[in-house]
Amino acid sequence: MRVLLVGAGGVGTAITRIAARRPFFEHMTVADYDLGRAESAVAALGERGDRFSAVRLDASDRAAVLETLGRHRCDVLLNATDPRFVLPLFESALAHGAHYLDMAMSLSRPHPSRPYEECGVKLGDAQFEQAADWEAAGRLALVGMGVEPGLSDVFARYASDELFDEIEEIGIRDGANLTVDGYDFAPSFSIWTTIEECLNPPVVYEQERGWYTTAPFSEPEVFDFPDGIGPVECVNVEHEEVLLVPRWLKARKVTFKYGLGDEFIGVLRTLHLLGLDRTEPVSVRSDLGQAAVSPRDVVAACLPDPAGLGERMHGKTCAGTWVKGVKDGRPREVYLYHVVDNQWSMREYGSQAVVWQTAINPVAALELLAGGVWGGSGVLGPEALPPRPFLDLLTEYGSPWGMREQ
Amino acid sequence: MRVLLVGAGGVGTAITRIAARRPFFEHMTVADYDLGRAESAVAALGERGDRFSAVRLDASDRAAVLETLGRHRCDVLLNATDPRFVLPLFESALAHGAHYLDMAMSLSRPHPSRPYEECGVKLGDAQFEQAADWEAAGRLALVGMGVEPGLSDVFARYASDELFDEIEEIGIRDGANLTVDGYDFAPSFSIWTTIEECLNPPVVYEQERGWYTTAPFSEPEVFDFPDGIGPVECVNVEHEEVLLVPRWLKARKVTFKYGLGDEFIGVLRTLHLLGLDRTEPVSVRSDLGQAAVSPRDVVAACLPDPAGLGERMHGKTCAGTWVKGVKDGRPREVYLYHVVDNQWSMREYGSQAVVWQTAINPVAALELLAGGVWGGSGVLGPEALPPRPFLDLLTEYGSPWGMREQ
Repeated sequence: MRVLLVGAGGVGTAITRIAARRPFFEHMTVADYDLGRAESAVAALGERGDRFSAVRLDASDRAAVLETLGRHRCDVLLNATDPRFVLPLFESALAHGAHYLDMAMSLSRPHPSRPYEECGVKLGDAQFEQAADWEAAGRLALVGMGVEPGLSDVFARYASDELFDEIEEIGIRDGANLTVDGYDFAPSFSIWTTIEECLNPPVVYEQERGWYTTAPFSEPEVFDFPDGIGPVECVNVEHEEVLLVPRWLKARKVTFKYGLGDEFIGVLRTLHLLGLDRTEPVSVRSDLGQAAVSPRDVVAACLPDPAGLGERMHGKTCAGTWVKGVKDGRPREVYLYHVVDNQWSMREYGSQAVVWQTAINPVAALELLAGGVWGGSGVLGPEALPPRPFLDLLTEYGSPWGMREQ
Repeated sequence: MRVLLVGAGGVGTAITRIAARRPFFEHMTVADYDLGRAESAVAALGERGDRFSAVRLDASDRAAVLETLGRHRCDVLLNATDPRFVLPLFESALAHGAHYLDMAMSLSRPHPSRPYEECGVKLGDAQFEQAADWEAAGRLALVGMGVEPGLSDVFARYASDELFDEIEEIGIRDGANLTVDGYDFAPSFSIWTTIEECLNPPVVYEQERGWYTTAPFSEPEVFDFPDGIGPVECVNVEHEEVLLVPRWLKARKVTFKYGLGDEFIGVLRTLHLLGLDRTEPVSVRSDLGQAAVSPRDVVAACLPDPAGLGERMHGKTCAGTWVKGVKDGRPREVYLYHVVDNQWSMREYGSQAVVWQTAINPVAALELLAGGVWGGSGVLGPEALPPRPFLDLLTEYGSPWGMREQ
């Protein structure tokens, strides 16, 4: 297997560190718009870097992506860029005849007149529209294969296969107790992306009603996270699992709730109220004269870069899938979860917990594809494939999952 | 009397409209950094504008201020700029031999090590240091002569002279029920200045302790405002009255609380948490390349210009002074107040309520000075002068004050 990894940011860099310890692939080409970032990621691997090379690549330039896939004879493209680049990478992979993996799906667009009631263009719609082409070509696009979506979908399939006869609700629940020394407010993940996903209308699935949307931050609930994280206020957020799970699994309801906590929700609401979440530029004085800047970029510029906060960060992050239903005629409720302690991921991999937890999953998926344990063609979510080998591999990687019967 | 009005923004423009109806002065020169603003203010007076002329003036350029005072033979300088320009205008007026009025005093600087306990440089300190020079020259600097400070100080003096034998607390309380059509969030006053005054450490005066500071937004209380405005949450804010009142009047405690309301306090806290209140530039992408912009300027650029909101605004604004003490051996508590209805100020003067309410007070003060009813030399606050003629003049202007015995 020869992999083209596109994106050497926080997650891409952690992918190289995890993959470097596994023998399953022959070569990984690390590509980034900023060649220096790609080179740094490879250089940091030291002696373990002999199967890696770094190249410059603009992910929006289809011709350049095709050329790079060809030159490096890659049979898989792993997309670790932000979701604006999903379509050019997804389509270039098929054009080349490579398999494709990503960790976030093509972007949604709100319903033009009823944004908080009905779906407009849904996450991943633009990818699923091309599913027949992938099937016809005998190639696999494994979409949403990070931690959430990704591992959370594998948990849903595992619950459906082995733990339940009937499922009432599959609810992805994500929470953390991370703190950052020296900052009153320092998000552990890109504020640009967090604004995007949290201010879009959240999507919910119900068997009778299909997919529908609600207002941002709807249906708050306090979820008690394991491993000492404890209770965190969670709210509905637009996320891929709600679009993926019902395509393969039977459940009366599918939700995603993100443990933003009161303070973060308040911050996002205020940014929206003041129009500081906008990407359309405003005109403002600058050292270069009256300049047009995107308010959302200014918000990001005022906050520390989350990828660089690992050393100052403390605590754990938890991703997981809560399932409620019936087994052997009796009600059952479980939470399947994966926790990463920042102290551990920094010591073992030099990567902060949130990006490391995202990165391990596509590496494990590549390993299963390389060994023929996972396979197929078309556009598939992680829940379309057998879950047990994946969960066992996580444990083999030294990062076991857990289950709480509740 | 020949007046040099410096600043033709919202308040300066409203000053010209109010003054144009009063015969007490011979000429008013309207000066602004932007000549077009000064000319618009004069042009809008129509037939009533024959005693006005417009000039360009940089308020920070002392030589230019002196030259303008001389050329137009002005005997009073009325400062309607923002507080960054207090010192050059104040000092140029004395150098020329003119009297001086302003509506905000020279800026404070927090205590370097104990900002939320002790005062550093206080509001107005730089002006009071020069009081002896004004006395020696026989010229008057009447400082803080807007609505708050200004009318609020006149109310304090009136209460002290006529309503109380002993005063326990003089508490300025400012609140409104203004809303703006078509905006979820649209401050009725400059957000730049609101951030400045609300995020500085608030100052409090106590007879035994003197002046001291607290953390921002301290000691919240719900104050019930008259004329249908109703209860609004008020918090301590740094304001001139706390520095002025104890210099002339006897009270055990002097406070200023601003009816920001929950939502506005939350917004200001969030802006501070994210560093978006900062004036020091951050580096961000722009149409001109990587540019340095002040986050606080970007916040202002995202919000509508408050001076232009009058037509879409509804509701009333209230400024007033609550006094608690003893009269004839019995406890007494009164609230002396002045309410402006935006609908009225827009219809009568084409000015929105908040700027109009500020503007009427320096015009009334000039009229009393012109007629010799008010006078003196040195640096004086409004509470140093007899209150009754001022309060009667407000009523004569068609904007009466009120008193609630509570």
